[in-house]
Amino acid sequence: GFAKIDHDRAKRQGFPEVIYCAGKTNEQIADIFAHLYQKSEQNIIASRATLENYQAVLAKVKDAKYDEFARIIYVDRDTMPIDDKRFILVMTAGTSDIPVAKEAGLTAQLMGNKVQYCFDVGVAGIHRLLSKKDLIDKANVIIVAAGMEGALASVVGGLANKPVIAVPTSVGYGASFHGLTALLSMLNSCAAGVAVMNIDNGFGAGRLASMINHMR
Amino acid sequence: GFAKIDHDRAKRQGFPEVIYCAGKTNEQIADIFAHLYQKSEQNIIASRATLENYQAVLAKVKDAKYDEFARIIYVDRDTMPIDDKRFILVMTAGTSDIPVAKEAGLTAQLMGNKVQYCFDVGVAGIHRLLSKKDLIDKANVIIVAAGMEGALASVVGGLANKPVIAVPTSVGYGASFHGLTALLSMLNSCAAGVAVMNIDNGFGAGRLASMINHMR
Amino acid sequence: GFAKIDHDRAKRQGFPEVIYCAGKTNEQIADIFAHLYQKSEQNIIASRATLENYQAVLAKVKDAKYDEFARIIYVDRDTMPIDDKRFILVMTAGTSDIPVAKEAGLTAQLMGNKVQYCFDVGVAGIHRLLSKKDLIDKANVIIVAAGMEGALASVVGGLANKPVIAVPTSVGYGASFHGLTALLSMLNSCAAGVAVMNIDNGFGAGRLASMINHMR
Amino acid sequence: GFAKIDHDRAKRQGFPEVIYCAGKTNEQIADIFAHLYQKSEQNIIASRATLENYQAVLAKVKDAKYDEFARIIYVDRDTMPIDDKRFILVMTAGTSDIPVAKEAGLTAQLMGNKVQYCFDVGVAGIHRLLSKKDLIDKANVIIVAAGMEGALASVVGGLANKPVIAVPTSVGYGASFHGLTALLSMLNSCAAGVAVMNIDNGFGAGRLASMINHMR
Amino acid sequence: GFAKIDHDRAKRQGFPEVIYCAGKTNEQIADIFAHLYQKSEQNIIASRATLENYQAVLAKVKDAKYDEFARIIYVDRDTMPIDDKRFILVMTAGTSDIPVAKEAGLTAQLMGNKVQYCFDVGVAGIHRLLSKKDLIDKANVIIVAAGMEGALASVVGGLANKPVIAVPTSVGYGASFHGLTALLSMLNSCAAGVAVMNIDNGFGAGRLASMINHMR
Amino acid sequence: GFAKIDHDRAKRQGFPEVIYCAGKTNEQIADIFAHLYQKSEQNIIASRATLENYQAVLAKVKDAKYDEFARIIYVDRDTMPIDDKRFILVMTAGTSDIPVAKEAGLTAQLMGNKVQYCFDVGVAGIHRLLSKKDLIDKANVIIVAAGMEGALASVVGGLANKPVIAVPTSVGYGASFHGLTALLSMLNSCAAGVAVMNIDNGFGAGRLASMINHMR
Amino acid sequence: GFAKIDHDRAKRQGFPEVIYCAGKTNEQIADIFAHLYQKSEQNIIASRATLENYQAVLAKVKDAKYDEFARIIYVDRDTMPIDDKRFILVMTAGTSDIPVAKEAGLTAQLMGNKVQYCFDVGVAGIHRLLSKKDLIDKANVIIVAAGMEGALASVVGGLANKPVIAVPTSVGYGASFHGLTALLSMLNSCAAGVAVMNIDNGFGAGRLASMINHMR
Amino acid sequence: GFAKIDHDRAKRQGFPEVIYCAGKTNEQIADIFAHLYQKSEQNIIASRATLENYQAVLAKVKDAKYDEFARIIYVDRDTMPIDDKRFILVMTAGTSDIPVAKEAGLTAQLMGNKVQYCFDVGVAGIHRLLSKKDLIDKANVIIVAAGMEGALASVVGGLANKPVIAVPTSVGYGASFHGLTALLSMLNSCAAGVAVMNIDNGFGAGRLASMINHMR
Ligand SMILES: Nc1ncnc2c1ncn2[C@@H]1O[C@H](COP(=O)(O)O)[C@@H](O)[C@H]1O
Ligand SMILES: Nc1ncnc2c1ncn2[C@@H]1O[C@H](COP(=O)(O)O)[C@@H](O)[C@H]1O
Ligand SMILES: Nc1ncnc2c1ncn2[C@@H]1O[C@H](COP(=O)(O)O)[C@@H](O)[C@H]1O
Ligand SMILES: Nc1ncnc2c1ncn2[C@@H]1O[C@H](COP(=O)(O)O)[C@@H](O)[C@H]1O
Ligand SMILES: [Mg+2]
Ligand SMILES: [Mg+2]
Ligand SMILES: [Mg+2]
Ligand SMILES: [Mg+2]
Ligand SMILES: [Mg+2]
Ligand SMILES: [Mg+2]
Ligand SMILES: [Mg+2]
Ligand SMILES: [Mg+2]
Repeated sequence: GFAKIDHDRAKRQGFPEVIYCAGKTNEQIADIFAHLYQKSEQNIIASRATLENYQAVLAKVKDAKYDEFARIIYVDRDTMPIDDKRFILVMTAGTSDIPVAKEAGLTAQLMGNKVQYCFDVGVAGIHRLLSKKDLIDKANVIIVAAGMEGALASVVGGLANKPVIAVPTSVGYGASFHGLTALLSMLNSCAAGVAVMNIDNGFGAGRLASMINHMR
Repeated sequence: GFAKIDHDRAKRQGFPEVIYCAGKTNEQIADIFAHLYQKSEQNIIASRATLENYQAVLAKVKDAKYDEFARIIYVDRDTMPIDDKRFILVMTAGTSDIPVAKEAGLTAQLMGNKVQYCFDVGVAGIHRLLSKKDLIDKANVIIVAAGMEGALASVVGGLANKPVIAVPTSVGYGASFHGLTALLSMLNSCAAGVAVMNIDNGFGAGRLASMINHMR
Repeated sequence: GFAKIDHDRAKRQGFPEVIYCAGKTNEQIADIFAHLYQKSEQNIIASRATLENYQAVLAKVKDAKYDEFARIIYVDRDTMPIDDKRFILVMTAGTSDIPVAKEAGLTAQLMGNKVQYCFDVGVAGIHRLLSKKDLIDKANVIIVAAGMEGALASVVGGLANKPVIAVPTSVGYGASFHGLTALLSMLNSCAAGVAVMNIDNGFGAGRLASMINHMR
Repeated sequence: GFAKIDHDRAKRQGFPEVIYCAGKTNEQIADIFAHLYQKSEQNIIASRATLENYQAVLAKVKDAKYDEFARIIYVDRDTMPIDDKRFILVMTAGTSDIPVAKEAGLTAQLMGNKVQYCFDVGVAGIHRLLSKKDLIDKANVIIVAAGMEGALASVVGGLANKPVIAVPTSVGYGASFHGLTALLSMLNSCAAGVAVMNIDNGFGAGRLASMINHMR
Repeated sequence: GFAKIDHDRAKRQGFPEVIYCAGKTNEQIADIFAHLYQKSEQNIIASRATLENYQAVLAKVKDAKYDEFARIIYVDRDTMPIDDKRFILVMTAGTSDIPVAKEAGLTAQLMGNKVQYCFDVGVAGIHRLLSKKDLIDKANVIIVAAGMEGALASVVGGLANKPVIAVPTSVGYGASFHGLTALLSMLNSCAAGVAVMNIDNGFGAGRLASMINHMR
Repeated sequence: GFAKIDHDRAKRQGFPEVIYCAGKTNEQIADIFAHLYQKSEQNIIASRATLENYQAVLAKVKDAKYDEFARIIYVDRDTMPIDDKRFILVMTAGTSDIPVAKEAGLTAQLMGNKVQYCFDVGVAGIHRLLSKKDLIDKANVIIVAAGMEGALASVVGGLANKPVIAVPTSVGYGASFHGLTALLSMLNSCAAGVAVMNIDNGFGAGRLASMINHMR
Repeated sequence: GFAKIDHDRAKRQGFPEVIYCAGKTNEQIADIFAHLYQKSEQNIIASRATLENYQAVLAKVKDAKYDEFARIIYVDRDTMPIDDKRFILVMTAGTSDIPVAKEAGLTAQLMGNKVQYCFDVGVAGIHRLLSKKDLIDKANVIIVAAGMEGALASVVGGLANKPVIAVPTSVGYGASFHGLTALLSMLNSCAAGVAVMNIDNGFGAGRLASMINHMR
Repeated sequence: GFAKIDHDRAKRQGFPEVIYCAGKTNEQIADIFAHLYQKSEQNIIASRATLENYQAVLAKVKDAKYDEFARIIYVDRDTMPIDDKRFILVMTAGTSDIPVAKEAGLTAQLMGNKVQYCFDVGVAGIHRLLSKKDLIDKANVIIVAAGMEGALASVVGGLANKPVIAVPTSVGYGASFHGLTALLSMLNSCAAGVAVMNIDNGFGAGRLASMINHMR
């Protein structure tokens, strides 16, 4: 009754509807999850999920797993082929940005991509980033998660000759305004063609990176 | 003296530095343009250019052309191969968004892409958009330029199974806040994985679309 | 002492003053509720009420009911005639917007209107909305509750030939800014004549829809 | 080529597409206007038009008229019936709000409504408003245009038992922020069910008022 | 050590320094309060105080009282003369604004003024306010506390021929932005010469009203 | 027709309605001015007036004068008694704030007050202010006009034992945001009881100061 | 794995990387701290630390100390020479600003500087500040921490002939917007050359003051 | 009359008051300039000056010079000693930031400092910056002027072991919000201890750099 699940989505967009848990009751989440699980044969993802949400899902779907860091409930049926040569690189400016990076990375993995991580290479010590130049060169798509002033996106955008997806994070305080500063900074990147996501939107970054990584 | 042109950029990123004309004098623009023209054998682009800027450039570079709509000065040496099967689709919500769409489209063309346009298909009359479904299906990458509430990006993002790049435009008045509303709207798109650019940043959209379109 | 209840309101505006519970003590709410209950013979509504508020009211007014979803305490005396042919359609973009929709719907019902709901028809899967076209055509007034980018209001506004009342919800995160983005988006709707309410103001939407639905 | 006129709109919504002139060239406006003029037999409206826009239109459509105050180019074919008993009342807080009121009023007239005006009845001298109580009582729908703090909308909303459509205007300075303060004020009206439009959006108010006034 | 109490203030400004409790430890508050209590013979006020703060003060100053509504700890030595003919009128738009009104009123009382209250006379039912016209006429200074759109300040400002001090309150939700809308609204009052205070700053309003009320 | 002049205002508030010229045509201003001039025997004020506005007024009212600095058109009939002992002190932080100060001062003068000015005593050189301590002590009411960070209001508020009216000015650049910073700064003054006006609202400050100065 | 500690920083910038604790787990903090402790022979600092963070660190590094006020975990090896003649003066406007001042002061001390404090000298009682003129004259660098309107920075900036570092604090309420007002105010200081830090960024102020104090 | 020049400033702060020209008339500027020129024997600076301002000054002070780029009128009496070993390095991200850099540099020069420039080394091509590492190492103080996302400040802040003064510029468009994004970005720099100035405030940066450069 309460939900109109978009069952056509897997056909239309290659992946079933992803459940956004915030603002839904445990019952609603478990119902939708179970429904998708039965109707689809692909992987299932529920984002922004709490442990409590997970327990409600688990009672209905025994295969469901939970990644506390990425705040994702998922079923991994491993049905999708993974191209091991083309990987998505997920970078963070600091250690505190890792949860958003994990949300992006796990989303991309569940959508059939190889993912590599490179954490804590913020621009305050630029040599850390420069020493990762070959990883940047080998990657097929890059996701950059950074809070505070978000400068990492511009520097990576200037070094890489491939799509860079910038995810501002809410890491910081005061005039970081819960990620707004990083968001604005990334939108104004002097490196041309950086794609920007909503604050803390690791999921969207993973989804876009996956779409690009599947192109040939 | 005054400029450190990034001559390495063509090698690093496959295309020479693009000149951002706003805030530069005619002399500075003409100097940088002439310099890039001599050092590179690729196409040259100067964005956000006025007619006056163009005249200064033309005095030094006879091949330079100007697209008044897109506000771009360029040299088109046609050196880059164009893949005619994979095209970038540039859509607008209204007629007033066309200049931004043209900035995106011309940038992409000069970077070696086939471009198709589809103007004035905003969501107030959704049948106009739905009748373009097969164009959406055939495109390789889609750019959506929209002002006011920018809802077109979400609807296209939900219909397409390929990267959608959203460019908010400053079209509108009052609480459109010169494009801020469209920008925020696109960042919060309920369609997963929409990439967002700065307000009126057709150039960035064209550059990103080109990078994605060149992947294989 | 502390409150000047507007007893003249039922006469002036056809419905007694509605109590806004936030920021009032249990005692104040119960006192005002009991007062209105005695002085009026119509339905009584208290909005933004907690369960605790309800218990205080119940101790004084045995007929009082509580709808936890809509956060409304009410007395339903069924005194007002309901026209079954003209109904108000309340739509939501997602499942998380349902509470606001319920506040609007219950308010309208208690003011003497037939209400129909249609949840989870957001624009990321536009076919869900299009399949409800005849419901849109039959409705007399439409309320649209949506968070994130709030694009549903524009699409419905473009499809319907009747008043559309848009209620932005605080559903979303990051640059949704607690509903501000949906609010701005709806104010800039490219569909002409969409009426906008404050963020999460289901009550106001229900009240306006009722006034319009009672016109002849 | 450049525009996809929504010819279906008159059928779908009872009135042809209205042209938003800002950001369009004279040629574009004249072309679209002439096109609509030929395809439709109803009244034609182009809003936010300059005198220059008008001259371009006039060269193609001899019947076109221009209201400089309302900034509207229009063709009045008088094809639509007008119900003289049900009128829309358009009120302003000050003299400087009149242009927005005229945009609303003329739009409503061209859509087949009787319109009455009541200017300069702002709350700084409340007796001026109270002396118009019977006009408020007789009207079928009310539009309130006010800048500065926009308080008139709340007071009228509390006096009237019919839909009140509030249009914030950009009249004011400093912390009026070009109409933002009036907009926010109207969204937070303590009078229940006031409908709010974008800043200076007289057109939208006229359109909504017309839709409500045509209901029976 | 930690505080430089401004002992000169009573001499300079007729009343001792008032302690702002937020952000101070219980010990700091109690120390400063005790210090002022010993050095001065006038009334002592500590604002924004919690019950816990009060208990710490009480342990050191047996005469200290606490008004939970006004969030004020005080010592009332009744040393100051009160002129019974000139009173300060404190009005509120709704019931939820009463705490701010009480902060203003108690501050003014402790500074030697007669205070009268008039609650819940918001503009949604303007007759409630108009019926208090003679109270407005008799008052010497008026304080208006209102949240949501804060329109009461303008209406009172237009009725009264005496200083009106407007205090926006954080009552409301959504686009009330915790009092910002009421603040902006009051700053743009079309009634000339309304004095505005910070959001919820009942203390400042009481202090200013007292200064004006003491003039002759 | 177009204006409902509030002729009752002089009786109700001791001074006729003041015309706000921005957004009015020359004809409208001249008409209202002439009307007030005939119906009232007091001074007449039109604020925010241009030289062009003045010429239109002068054609109808030979007595009208214009103060270009204060942007005020006025008729000075000298009908109101002036108390020479009680003066209003108008201070500015810099030289660029003088126009706002003049708007305040002239308004107050025309409303029957003695005014003294003290310009350019901003806090960057605090000795300039301290050397004016006796002027501060002798004044009855103080108006402080300051832009940039507006700190002068707090320092004067801490020195004076009388009402201080703060007018933020739009003097400054960058993060002064056209006066917003000075406005916010003054609202948060650590000196208790500073009254704040809208940005550049010298008129309101003069009006409030006059009301306070007339109390006894 | 998760962190790329910038071990080169001590060599490059004279002090090891400072750990920003917010958003990190206890394990991450303890690991990084222990790592830095072993690799470096200088003092170690972790900012924005909770007591719980400290306990986790203490389990691994016995020498670690915690300053609850400054929210800093540190190891003080006293390896750096301290010049006793050149001191950094840390001033606050109120008592509530002390925690930020302590963060600044302790940071500077651990980086090898002599620090003096001067609390509660805000501009509401300017004589308190003026009586500290010789401290201002003797200091080598000055840090000013102030909330609300932050005016202290301007006054000190005008008195001192040495670098003044302004740290806005989040002390205040309502339109202080969690420190934004103080931040904007300090950025617009009419005293030339005041350096501004992020809201509550005592750490950054201490670091900058230390760098300046070490120059010769 | 109109200005209270702070003649004590040269004694107090080592340099005479600098005239801020915006909002002053030509006469006012010329008067103050001439006054300072006579009373002081040091260099004189007027910032934010137009060519027209300069002509007015020149008529009174024959020695006055004008730098159109830096928008500064000045008298260079060369009275102050310049230490040639300690220089201030002024860097820009792009060519469009040069005017702000020149305002900073000329201010510093006139206050007795050696200045070196390094333009157009923005992070989109980081090798340009890295190739200037020895200039960074040799400088005594660094000023970084950057618009758009302002990332250059963080990268330089991480490379340099000396005070870095960041000046956000208004270069950019859309969500650069006239320099606000660069400002916020710089305030949140992950490089510790970066000092931030108001948008486009080259003057303040030059003044602070000079104060630091004169320390020993
Ligand atoms: N309280 C603080 N405020 C601002 N920046 C800080 C603070 N503490 C540490 N930092 C900086 O944050 C960076 C460490 O970030 P992370 O790698 O996440 O630990 C370092 O470059 C520090 O200079
Ligand atoms: N400069 C001003 N700033 C603010 N309010 C003003 C100003 N001048 C006049 N007013 C007020 O604006 C109202 C007139 O508005 P209007 O009817 O549009 O002329 C009157 O109530 C005046 O009190
Ligand atoms: N949920 C709501 N949202 C907005 N306004 C409301 C709501 N509930 C009641 N009101 C209005 O708030 C006013 C009552 O305020 P009060 O006197 O504080 O109870 C009435 O005029 C109602 O029309
Ligand atoms: N229209 C544009 N919008 C955003 N960035 C641009 C634009 N045009 C050029 N750029 C970027 O701006 C930088 C050039 O800045 P500048 O050195 O000032 O010319 C280059 O890195 C370009 O990638
Ligand atoms: Mg790190
Ligand atoms: Mg169109
Ligand atoms: Mg759904
Ligand atoms: Mg009027
Ligand atoms: Mg009430
Ligand atoms: Mg001055
Ligand atoms: Mg204190
Ligand atoms: Mg460049």
